[in-house]
Amino acid sequence: MNLITATDLTNDLRKLEIDIEKSVSEDEFIQEICTPLLRGGKRLRPILFLLCARSKNFCSPEKALPLATALELIHTASLVHDDILDSAKKRRGVETLNSKYGAQIAVLVGDYLFAKAFQLVAENDYGNEVSLILSKLVKKLCIGEIMQDRKLFVVPTLSEYYRQIDLKTAFFLSTCCRLGGIVAQLEKSDVENLANYGTSLGLAFQIVDDLLDFFGEENITGKALGGDLKGGVITLPVIRALRIGKNSDTLKKILAQDKISNAEVLTAIKIIRETDAVEYCKNRAASHIYCARLDLPNDIDKSVKNSLEKIADFVINRNW
Amino acid sequence: MNLITATDLTNDLRKLEIDIEKSVSEDEFIQEICTPLLRGGKRLRPILFLLCARSKNFCSPEKALPLATALELIHTASLVHDDILDSAKKRRGVETLNSKYGAQIAVLVGDYLFAKAFQLVAENDYGNEVSLILSKLVKKLCIGEIMQDRKLFVVPTLSEYYRQIDLKTAFFLSTCCRLGGIVAQLEKSDVENLANYGTSLGLAFQIVDDLLDFFGEENITGKALGGDLKGGVITLPVIRALRIGKNSDTLKKILAQDKISNAEVLTAIKIIRETDAVEYCKNRAASHIYCARLDLPNDIDKSVKNSLEKIADFVINRNW
Repeated sequence: MNLITATDLTNDLRKLEIDIEKSVSEDEFIQEICTPLLRGGKRLRPILFLLCARSKNFCSPEKALPLATALELIHTASLVHDDILDSAKKRRGVETLNSKYGAQIAVLVGDYLFAKAFQLVAENDYGNEVSLILSKLVKKLCIGEIMQDRKLFVVPTLSEYYRQIDLKTAFFLSTCCRLGGIVAQLEKSDVENLANYGTSLGLAFQIVDDLLDFFGEENITGKALGGDLKGGVITLPVIRALRIGKNSDTLKKILAQDKISNAEVLTAIKIIRETDAVEYCKNRAASHIYCARLDLPNDIDKSVKNSLEKIADFVINRNW
Repeated sequence: MNLITATDLTNDLRKLEIDIEKSVSEDEFIQEICTPLLRGGKRLRPILFLLCARSKNFCSPEKALPLATALELIHTASLVHDDILDSAKKRRGVETLNSKYGAQIAVLVGDYLFAKAFQLVAENDYGNEVSLILSKLVKKLCIGEIMQDRKLFVVPTLSEYYRQIDLKTAFFLSTCCRLGGIVAQLEKSDVENLANYGTSLGLAFQIVDDLLDFFGEENITGKALGGDLKGGVITLPVIRALRIGKNSDTLKKILAQDKISNAEVLTAIKIIRETDAVEYCKNRAASHIYCARLDLPNDIDKSVKNSLEKIADFVINRNW
């Protein structure tokens, strides 16, 4: 069974880009500030959704694209609002709205993008279940960020860290896969399997992201190095280094401050590198990817399955 | 025709309060910070909706209440986000989230309330039209605030001022009435009439609000005096005083600054009082209320019509 082709997917993605651009074209100022912001994304969420939506009963791109766009808008809205929280200066390689236009505009543009996403869903008759899933997704993203904000500069336990990355990333990717399965009218068990694939993929994705925050190249990741640490968000590489590193006292001292300098970020990176933290994180990410692959349903379209497997590999091998 | 009684309405409002409280009870921290915030509102938006929803074909409170709650949540969310923009210290008589917990939490709590509103709508089968109207409402509120934020300390023309208060308030009140008419399954023309009533009511409401910003009593309005002016939002009393006052040069000088002191607010109030601005604003508000009453459909439930007329009178006679 091979219902869709690589050409179909390429066409979907081309149309997705057009729809994303169009989604902010109603108001001139919104368009001006959102267009550069919306251009740089990996499109991981809409791609996961589109693939799952095309995984069995052939779902037309016309049916799938508005929801794919809505997912990217929700993701972008939450990034815009997160950048207020983090006072981040760069995102997707460009200056953040927060930094360029101030928190005021960033709050409103994020709200606008959320509202536009719900408009796209309402306009395209996806039904109440889809709206409900999306509203719960946004709530979970908020709860995740609130939790994170309340625990800044606090070293989480491993299970607290996992709860955090689930709320922040894994639940979102899982939701994209779930929605795709629903739109494709898959059987319940297959929808659950796709959702489980999304969860594992998301855990791996966030762990890799947390590694890239320390070891990525700024001009490739599009984000400033050590941004999480400076903002007080303690992630897996630090958790691991604190547990086993011989220089964990220095690391603890750095974390005990309210403000962390660039030099201290470099010290932290050095300390982390002296431990097995990088390997440990990579191994954990790889094990989630292994689980993700196991959860993929067997009887879905072969080229979709193949693409979902490739995404799984991309997630752990990426440098952006 | 008198389908509903004052007791029905009192019962609706009692249930509304319970539902509003329940809407933020899922998460302990959300509950802790939202409960005081949600307590102080006038409930104008849900009341307008409930009245219109009960205006003809009897609509059960079970059907109407979740949407009434959603409207109050959207209103509260936009207030929470506005308070970030305005750096306001007080709202509904209590300290703003922004002031108490910082912009971070205020952004997220606002997002949560928006999402919860959309969840309530999706859960209660109001259909796509209602979701669509709500998402467009949120977009309009954002556009209105963005416009306002870009024109701070700029004196608007009368028509720019009207566009502003339409986006900010009148469109919201109009939407509440429209949604009520839709839920009550009124004829299209009656829905439009109710929506027009809401628009006029909203224009009057905002003009009175703008007066109260200068002449209200802080312990009654729950907001700090001259907050708009200090934030650079130039409203009708100032527009009028600038046009006809003999001390308009002093007023212009005050407005030409980036920061306006408390003493300057008092000077501005004195200058405004020397003109006919207060009377002018009151007359304008009264004329909108006159229009609002004219738009009320004749063949709706008598006690609903009576209540909508009372609300119109309240809007221009209120001191909070």
